[in-house]
Amino acid sequence: MLFSTPYREKQLRTLVQKLGLPESAPVRWELLDLALTHPTASAAANYERLEFVGDAVVKLAAAEFLFATYPESDEGELSAMRGVLVSDRLLSEISDRYGLDRYLLVSGSTHADHLGRETRLAAALEALLAALYLSTHTLELVHPWLDLHLKQHAERIRQDPTLENYKGALQGLTQAHYQMLPDYKITEVGQVYGDPERFVAEVWVQERMWGRGKGRSKKAAEQTAAQIAFLALQKSLQNESPLD
Amino acid sequence: MLFSTPYREKQLRTLVQKLGLPESAPVRWELLDLALTHPTASAAANYERLEFVGDAVVKLAAAEFLFATYPESDEGELSAMRGVLVSDRLLSEISDRYGLDRYLLVSGSTHADHLGRETRLAAALEALLAALYLSTHTLELVHPWLDLHLKQHAERIRQDPTLENYKGALQGLTQAHYQMLPDYKITEVGQVYGDPERFVAEVWVQERMWGRGKGRSKKAAEQTAAQIAFLALQKSLQNESPLD
Repeated sequence: MLFSTPYREKQLRTLVQKLGLPESAPVRWELLDLALTHPTASAAANYERLEFVGDAVVKLAAAEFLFATYPESDEGELSAMRGVLVSDRLLSEISDRYGLDRYLLVSGSTHADHLGRETRLAAALEALLAALYLSTHTLELVHPWLDLHLKQHAERIRQDPTLENYKGALQGLTQAHYQMLPDYKITEVGQVYGDPERFVAEVWVQERMWGRGKGRSKKAAEQTAAQIAFLALQKSLQNESPLD
Repeated sequence: MLFSTPYREKQLRTLVQKLGLPESAPVRWELLDLALTHPTASAAANYERLEFVGDAVVKLAAAEFLFATYPESDEGELSAMRGVLVSDRLLSEISDRYGLDRYLLVSGSTHADHLGRETRLAAALEALLAALYLSTHTLELVHPWLDLHLKQHAERIRQDPTLENYKGALQGLTQAHYQMLPDYKITEVGQVYGDPERFVAEVWVQERMWGRGKGRSKKAAEQTAAQIAFLALQKSLQNESPLD
């Protein structure tokens, strides 16, 4: 049985149409159904294993797109751009363009979890990408629509590499100049859920602390710390480069 | 021009044959040539951009293999296994099976850099995988030979998840139990290249330092620290689980 209910069939067919894929696309519908099932809706059969595959699918799709589109960019630049393109923030934005939350089966209380929304929508999109990849074992059901979003965001990122994701930008900088990644040290200073100063993050590069940030989540604290570190490190590199 | 010299053509055709691919395989030879050119041999045209793509190719190939082979394993187990399968150590081992260092164009002094050998061979294999993927935009030139190695190592890892890569095993453990990754804090305590105590790594999980290790490279120090942390954390989780 490909579809659990006729309603689900109609729903999934509508989504595939929204993606701009032809009606005859060789979609493995049972995988697509799974990709749009949150763990709260089914502990046994949900998107988690597909998300594991989809994480690699989106990275490869983005790598392939960037490799072909920017022949003059070195691997450090490509890697920094990909860091932004595959971030939860951007993936959840793409999810929203297709209203993916309306297709995602969840338990009743999950919709109310606004803090988890971004992660949930990014995970669902990754699982959807895996379902489409595994349908043909190629990216032919993925590139036609995903590349439109990648192209649009990549151009924006190129204008300002720090616009979206300071962690990605900082990583590109330290890889290019020191062949290493920054170290993040996180401390939980408060116990209150939602407290905007609950977590403190420090960024270390080459034995030196370059930035410290606070946030309601580890990610938010890291992003703030990364922004401070990126600006400080960039300035330091600009100052020293004439002497190199 | 597909090949720089007739000798290079012969070399690359021999390698493709060694991989077990048919003579008629639709290989983009200019990409294969690039994949086996180290930055010391050419600063402008080398494997670095392909390695960026190849990193995603090997992750997807491993994810696809694990997803199909272990239908009973959850995403935490799959992720821990993949961590080992795509580690530099294992990729360089696969490189060695095909004698990839004999096909890799490097500057004269590079062969003497034994410490960098593992990284170099892993990078060349990733670039080779990218060249084959980009030849057909599928994994059809990759799965036939790579899966043999993945299968063999995956079985070994399943027997003992900590056998090969404590960092991967630790990551699987912290993701499964805390939905987070361990933090590594590295300090360079010595300045002497090759000194077995040059670097000190600490592993932090949930505000607590679980392991400390020393090594001649950052990676070695991290691996030791991860081993200690993995064993300590596993013991702690076993002790607390009856009370959960």
